[in-house]
Amino acid sequence: MSVSNNVKVACCQLAPKIGDLAHNRRICERAIRHAAQQGARVVVLPELVQSGYLFHDLAEALAHAEALDGPTLQLWQALALELDIVIVGGFCEQLDQQRVANSAALVDSSGLRVVYRKAHLWDGEHAIFTPGSEAPPVVETAVGRIGVMICYDIEFPEWVRLPALAGAELICVPVNWPDGPRPAIERPNEVVRVQANASVNRVFIAACDRHGQERGMNWVQGSVIVDADGYPVAGPAEAAGEQILVATLRLGEARNKYISRHNHLHQDRRPELYRAGGLLEQVANG
Amino acid sequence: MSVSNNVKVACCQLAPKIGDLAHNRRICERAIRHAAQQGARVVVLPELVQSGYLFHDLAEALAHAEALDGPTLQLWQALALELDIVIVGGFCEQLDQQRVANSAALVDSSGLRVVYRKAHLWDGEHAIFTPGSEAPPVVETAVGRIGVMICYDIEFPEWVRLPALAGAELICVPVNWPDGPRPAIERPNEVVRVQANASVNRVFIAACDRHGQERGMNWVQGSVIVDADGYPVAGPAEAAGEQILVATLRLGEARNKYISRHNHLHQDRRPELYRAGGLLEQVANG
Repeated sequence: MSVSNNVKVACCQLAPKIGDLAHNRRICERAIRHAAQQGARVVVLPELVQSGYLFHDLAEALAHAEALDGPTLQLWQALALELDIVIVGGFCEQLDQQRVANSAALVDSSGLRVVYRKAHLWDGEHAIFTPGSEAPPVVETAVGRIGVMICYDIEFPEWVRLPALAGAELICVPVNWPDGPRPAIERPNEVVRVQANASVNRVFIAACDRHGQERGMNWVQGSVIVDADGYPVAGPAEAAGEQILVATLRLGEARNKYISRHNHLHQDRRPELYRAGGLLEQVANG
Repeated sequence: MSVSNNVKVACCQLAPKIGDLAHNRRICERAIRHAAQQGARVVVLPELVQSGYLFHDLAEALAHAEALDGPTLQLWQALALELDIVIVGGFCEQLDQQRVANSAALVDSSGLRVVYRKAHLWDGEHAIFTPGSEAPPVVETAVGRIGVMICYDIEFPEWVRLPALAGAELICVPVNWPDGPRPAIERPNEVVRVQANASVNRVFIAACDRHGQERGMNWVQGSVIVDADGYPVAGPAEAAGEQILVATLRLGEARNKYISRHNHLHQDRRPELYRAGGLLEQVANG
């Protein structure tokens, strides 16, 4: 049984340097220690924070990939043990001599608990990363049940359902959100989608973005922690550069899926009707 | 082939009186004519605008229900013909002598095109309405492909996928959003969910809420029209009472599902992986 009330969760919005793995480990360690000093028991890092994001090609990615016994995951495990925290962060995973994945690890004081591989690839990632085919995992930790997915994955509400239905109280999402045009007064729709996914599942979500221009790319810098109703409780940071967002979450609230006397968000689903999608898809593409 | 560019779409945020069907027809006619005068070719009305919402019981609902040849749908069809517009509005549908549905009709100048019956019932509705089991329809109209769903339906992203995959450019959603607590500075999460559903499908959505206290219930009054990126182009009205929101939409934009050179929102789905939901659901409930 997890102790799931009043858990401090942090998102560390950092600027990794592409290919400078030692630097990236240093900024991660500094931020993780800083977050833990503020009482965080769960620390979320950006997507590919171990390596940087915009690889020119697969060869460059392979050169900077790490296996599960590599120095970055070793560091994160040592810190999780020392500080008694959960760390979720993104890394370029060496699958074999020819393949890499855009992965995220969840480590705690007992070591490496799970590795998740991004299943929905963004743009140029298609030329570099092998997509995962395993559903987002849900890990029972000392502070609660934590799910993991990565960036573009969260634009597929069907994918968010899987860890939510499996009992996740908090979903940690390392992201690298490329910046783009939007109405000046509007919150970025990357953040809006996080909010909506939380609210239709009554699950907490911590999305950790990056900052720092990389090979001409800028980022939303929109790290956000939202409650189970989908409202932000820390962030969105929004173009604020380096940030450590910290929020205290009563994760146990996510176990209550009732939003009215008669409405349970998951039991109200009618999955037998949703399967019609396959047929309609053929019509739409026909 | 539909002419789908530069279509004016209106949401008429009205205050029906429960059980006063003649009054409700009058306020609908006035608003529909007003919207058409402003150039609207599609006019969306609230959920159950024909009857009001908070019935005491099934007997009261039956007393105010209308069949498909009832005076409200006759009026809407006459107006659609006269004004050459599409109207989408909610009504209490008499299914037989014992059963009613929370339904929405889409009518155009050719008459009644489709009736949709709400599939996800909210709170006390369970004691009154028979839920529908048909997917949200998509109708090819003179101005574009229009899908229809009702209120709580839109909290199920799997349900929104069905008309989106079937080619809807615009989804019209009659709603009655009960007001509830939220952080003062935040946009209501009812609106946030509309935005997210639009953005993950690149589909326009027009959600038409109601106003006017009814049997102690207040409403968000959050009518909103969002573009295919999920950003509002009219509203949210938010507690503004009677409103006619009008926006000019280039509906054809919804046919382009590409959000990067390599990312097509619908083709990027991996439905074979989403089916795992059934198994996980058993674990979560076990």
